[in-house]
Amino acid sequence: MLMIAAACLSAGYARAEDGYDLWLRYRTSVSSSGAPRVSPRIDTRSSSRMMVAAADELRRALAGLSTAQVAMLGPIVVATAGDPDVRALDLPLALLGDEGYLVRTVTLARARVTLVTANTERGALYGSFALLRHLYTGGDPRRIALSSAPRVHLRILDHWDNLDGSVERGYAGQSLWDWWTLPDYRDPRYTDYARANASIGINGVVLNNVNASADTLTARYIAKAAALADIFRPYGIKVYLSARFSAPIELGGLASADPLDPRVAAWWRAKADEIYRAIPDFGGFLVKANSEGQPGPRDYHRSHADGANMLAAAVRPHGGVIMWRAFVYADTDPDDRAKQAWTEFKPLDGQFADNVIVQVKNGAIDFQPREPFHPLFGAMPRTALMPEFQITKEYLGQATHLAYLGPLFAETLRADTMAHGSGSTVARIIDGSIEHHRLTGIAGVANVGRDRDWSGSTFNQANWYAFGRLAWDPALDPRAIAREWAAMTFAPAIAKRVATMMMPSREAVVDYMTPLGLAHLMATGHHYGPEPWVSGLKRPEWNPVYYHRADRNGIGFDRTASGSNAVAQYAPALARQLSNPATTPPSELLWFHHLRWDHPMPSGRTLWTELVQRYDAGVAQVGDMRRQWNGLRPQVDAERWEKTATFLDIQAREAAWWRDASIAYWSSINGLPLPAGTRPPAHDVRWYEAQRFPHAPGNPQ
Amino acid sequence: MLMIAAACLSAGYARAEDGYDLWLRYRTSVSSSGAPRVSPRIDTRSSSRMMVAAADELRRALAGLSTAQVAMLGPIVVATAGDPDVRALDLPLALLGDEGYLVRTVTLARARVTLVTANTERGALYGSFALLRHLYTGGDPRRIALSSAPRVHLRILDHWDNLDGSVERGYAGQSLWDWWTLPDYRDPRYTDYARANASIGINGVVLNNVNASADTLTARYIAKAAALADIFRPYGIKVYLSARFSAPIELGGLASADPLDPRVAAWWRAKADEIYRAIPDFGGFLVKANSEGQPGPRDYHRSHADGANMLAAAVRPHGGVIMWRAFVYADTDPDDRAKQAWTEFKPLDGQFADNVIVQVKNGAIDFQPREPFHPLFGAMPRTALMPEFQITKEYLGQATHLAYLGPLFAETLRADTMAHGSGSTVARIIDGSIEHHRLTGIAGVANVGRDRDWSGSTFNQANWYAFGRLAWDPALDPRAIAREWAAMTFAPAIAKRVATMMMPSREAVVDYMTPLGLAHLMATGHHYGPEPWVSGLKRPEWNPVYYHRADRNGIGFDRTASGSNAVAQYAPALARQLSNPATTPPSELLWFHHLRWDHPMPSGRTLWTELVQRYDAGVAQVGDMRRQWNGLRPQVDAERWEKTATFLDIQAREAAWWRDASIAYWSSINGLPLPAGTRPPAHDVRWYEAQRFPHAPGNPQ
Repeated sequence: MLMIAAACLSAGYARAEDGYDLWLRYRTSVSSSGAPRVSPRIDTRSSSRMMVAAADELRRALAGLSTAQVAMLGPIVVATAGDPDVRALDLPLALLGDEGYLVRTVTLARARVTLVTANTERGALYGSFALLRHLYTGGDPRRIALSSAPRVHLRILDHWDNLDGSVERGYAGQSLWDWWTLPDYRDPRYTDYARANASIGINGVVLNNVNASADTLTARYIAKAAALADIFRPYGIKVYLSARFSAPIELGGLASADPLDPRVAAWWRAKADEIYRAIPDFGGFLVKANSEGQPGPRDYHRSHADGANMLAAAVRPHGGVIMWRAFVYADTDPDDRAKQAWTEFKPLDGQFADNVIVQVKNGAIDFQPREPFHPLFGAMPRTALMPEFQITKEYLGQATHLAYLGPLFAETLRADTMAHGSGSTVARIIDGSIEHHRLTGIAGVANVGRDRDWSGSTFNQANWYAFGRLAWDPALDPRAIAREWAAMTFAPAIAKRVATMMMPSREAVVDYMTPLGLAHLMATGHHYGPEPWVSGLKRPEWNPVYYHRADRNGIGFDRTASGSNAVAQYAPALARQLSNPATTPPSELLWFHHLRWDHPMPSGRTLWTELVQRYDAGVAQVGDMRRQWNGLRPQVDAERWEKTATFLDIQAREAAWWRDASIAYWSSINGLPLPAGTRPPAHDVRWYEAQRFPHAPGNPQ
Repeated sequence: MLMIAAACLSAGYARAEDGYDLWLRYRTSVSSSGAPRVSPRIDTRSSSRMMVAAADELRRALAGLSTAQVAMLGPIVVATAGDPDVRALDLPLALLGDEGYLVRTVTLARARVTLVTANTERGALYGSFALLRHLYTGGDPRRIALSSAPRVHLRILDHWDNLDGSVERGYAGQSLWDWWTLPDYRDPRYTDYARANASIGINGVVLNNVNASADTLTARYIAKAAALADIFRPYGIKVYLSARFSAPIELGGLASADPLDPRVAAWWRAKADEIYRAIPDFGGFLVKANSEGQPGPRDYHRSHADGANMLAAAVRPHGGVIMWRAFVYADTDPDDRAKQAWTEFKPLDGQFADNVIVQVKNGAIDFQPREPFHPLFGAMPRTALMPEFQITKEYLGQATHLAYLGPLFAETLRADTMAHGSGSTVARIIDGSIEHHRLTGIAGVANVGRDRDWSGSTFNQANWYAFGRLAWDPALDPRAIAREWAAMTFAPAIAKRVATMMMPSREAVVDYMTPLGLAHLMATGHHYGPEPWVSGLKRPEWNPVYYHRADRNGIGFDRTASGSNAVAQYAPALARQLSNPATTPPSELLWFHHLRWDHPMPSGRTLWTELVQRYDAGVAQVGDMRRQWNGLRPQVDAERWEKTATFLDIQAREAAWWRDASIAYWSSINGLPLPAGTRPPAHDVRWYEAQRFPHAPGNPQ
């Protein structure tokens, strides 16, 4: 033991806690467990790659527990429902489906053991991670009774990773995939990525950007994807690819990509066959078509359903699915951008093949700090819909701002569409329980890159974690998820305090960037920092002024009947509520209404005064987070504490910048004095307008 | 002790040997040192940041030694020449200058101690690293007598890093510099980078690409550079910036960047003053001017000396230098590209200010696997010249090929220019000993990025190491350097075998890519793979056919009097040798001569037969390396062994590809049968011509 200790210490200098281990850190405190190593008995009753992975994970994790804890746990048996011992116990496995698990302290052959069981090995893998989560969040090792099954089938990370290693809207370094050395070199990091995903139930990964290169579909890149699929397979993760709709032209030499052209359909069938030969469990294609310049079926006057169904036919023989994005807005349509996806897709309800799922952003614009839920949810009952969230914080401060997105994800999932009466929440639409869809899914745009800490900051890891947990069960409480994450990432002893700090963080971003339902006021292109004044871009809906519509008299986008009437895209009961400022939630007020600056708010203040107070509240909340983080310093390792503290400093500065620039700009428009007691902006609006950030990260090439 | 051991073990799974520790691994074997930890006495007699850094390094390192070794070493005293104890010892410090060191076992106050001393703290820092190198390469801790001073003053890494995080010709991930979070966040990695550089004597870092953005010189980026300078300072490393010559127009709003325009000079003076206020020990500017589209003084019909001297005046009051690149070739000059730098710069000899040093690539074309030394060395006796090597392997297989560049660097440094009689080697030109320059330097284009192992592979680290060691002392033996590196990177026990594998590796690359003096046959743009057939690019010197000039009758570039007469740029005695194929080294034969395919070689074989045999020799050498590496498997940790083995597989495949494509192409040109017993290429030349690599890394944006 002494010998090993010395080796460890000599390497200790360079091996500070750097975030690489994520929530699979497997220590019960920040410094160390203080416990000698023990070798628990783990019996997986199968030598499949998946069960070897489960056993390996259990061994890693149990090495961090105390002898006493391991003893209380007893031997661990991982076995599927077909195992005679499991059958003899007559456990309630029927409702677990093919991914659920049951973990329970039982007596087997007169010995008390911890049993991890499920109908499938995949379920048993998830059960193993559930057991570890239980143990590392302070759960009792003696009386374990865990059981859960996912409510959504496809739980997917979308990587916006390009073949040159850049990541669109990536703030955590280059793409994880080193395309250049694949398929030969299998970086151990790929396995750690799969472990992290499996631990939170993610079962699918789209490897490449929706703004896709056709090269992804060449033999060379299929072989690379196949290598990743092989690494991910024991962790229950399928690989998907974003497909460029015009690939038959670019790769196949065809004159057209018309989905109704039999040669085009044949090309895609042959391509699907080729992919499935290399990747037998290939998940399918994700497609961004006729959106922001991407090719698609509309180029041939065909519908999105025509395009999706043609691809669906190609992957159907292999069990594949098509995830077809509804993120469309035409460069010729002068109508409210927020309405266009509904306008184009709702008429197609019922026309999509049953292995197509339409992927709908959580809101109708584009991943803003807050958006009302997308009106397509509930509006296409005969179509499988999956929400698309953005885990990477394109519009929420990018890498450096601490913004816990659990509340944002949950807000959409819990929103009541009223489409099938009260209680028809987005969650119940997309989990299939109301509309009886067999195919269900949730997608999140990944925030993962090659940075050592994967996500650019420790707290960004929490958004990856929360996405996975909510995809598994949309009913989970974001605060409980935050505590779980914090217990595993730091230590159970400080989990509650860390979660308390995290919970208001997203609302703080809303307040200092886009309070009261404002949206899309970020700088052009890279979306870093405020540019509410931008008005000169070619397409109207690229300009922030399109969204806020502020003038001398008022501010906000009238989406009632007197305006764009976007409210009519919601269920009638909800549309009525949203048509009236008095019954519209203040948090969405200016999304739906154009109001006078002196509009009286429920608080009794004018809109202008309330708006300024929201900015101040956002800035103050960041100050609060800094104070809380300072208080946690003794309980957190130096490297992660320091980086987070520095990022909070940046956030505090930038929150003040957002507040000041916004107030300066609104003042210059409305000519009103600042509400009494308001600190004036540090500079005038010209100063803010002059700021330029030519090398901001994450911008598409 | 038990407690710490357990913590270490529990984290052990994720902490495999991953190359991050470089040659500062501080273990005497691959597995572990097997020794209990001891606390050596270290007395630095100063609490300056530099001496704290030295002490910290000694503590890290000594923790990896056995108790017995540490005891034999005795207390370590780090003290400069002014220390009374050191003065009393009357040591030979005079010749050490301000960077040399002396490390010696001495008796101080009747105790045997290991003394690290120097005239300056910087020297003492280098001495500390020299002591650690001694100990970790198997040196005796009891009788230490080390002493060395660098022969070259500026030992510089040039980063071709862009402000958006990309790295031109980078094959090791994104830029180390996270410009976006600087100056706030000081990644601990920056310190580890400085440690690595200091350990091999590198004392300057150019932070940004020579194809420079003017934004580098804005206040925002100066503050970022200042943060890095502050981190590097205790390690004796100065920061430099690449300057865009047209910055006075782009940033200053001037109408011109004419170096003789007083407003331009004033702008640069003010800019230099601004930089020095933020970075008092700023090193100076590196400039790529009028080269490959970059702006420069020639745009105003001024000379390179005019441009350099104007900048030199701006930094002179602060002690700064200008490194001015001689890498120029005009898009209007039909003369041999290899001649153009000499033609343009030689007439300027004596015109450069004394704080200007002209940076000359090791060869006259562009960092090829082999080039004759650049004819400017020895041709500008009244000008300080510094060679520029490329550590990143743009033309030598990029990240994946194992090519130890120590022999390449040494080949240039040892080349005899004959400019001042026999023995006037490039090393003696550039170290100032022949031409008596005060200002001396060596630059290497860095191969460092954000990949976990810094350089894209373990063996690429050796090139960073060898560059630093040869910059310190150009007379060092590349094989000795390889053994040193291997002892510290792996273990002393296998150092000799590793070095034996490394030594022929660069020659193997020459053989399978560009044997017998061929050059620049790589693919267009990204330079990955063979494209000797390319002939259609706009500028003649961009085309491989420009360099090999192969036709039915012969191959090679006639640079004798009957051709471009580039040989006349060398000293007459050397020019005479190179004018005759019989006295030209076979390794440079086709660089200087166009010869018939049946030209008789010294071996008695025809040129064609010899050429094919060189390709085969290169491929065979890679096979040898694979066998040697397989033999080392038991002695190397799994992760580094596996990655290297995979990369050797890639290299073997690509070496065969180079050989086959080249032979197929030459055959198609000369119509000759393959020499008897030659394995025919796997495909015909059309197949090789059809290969495309659209996402190859490192290509400029």
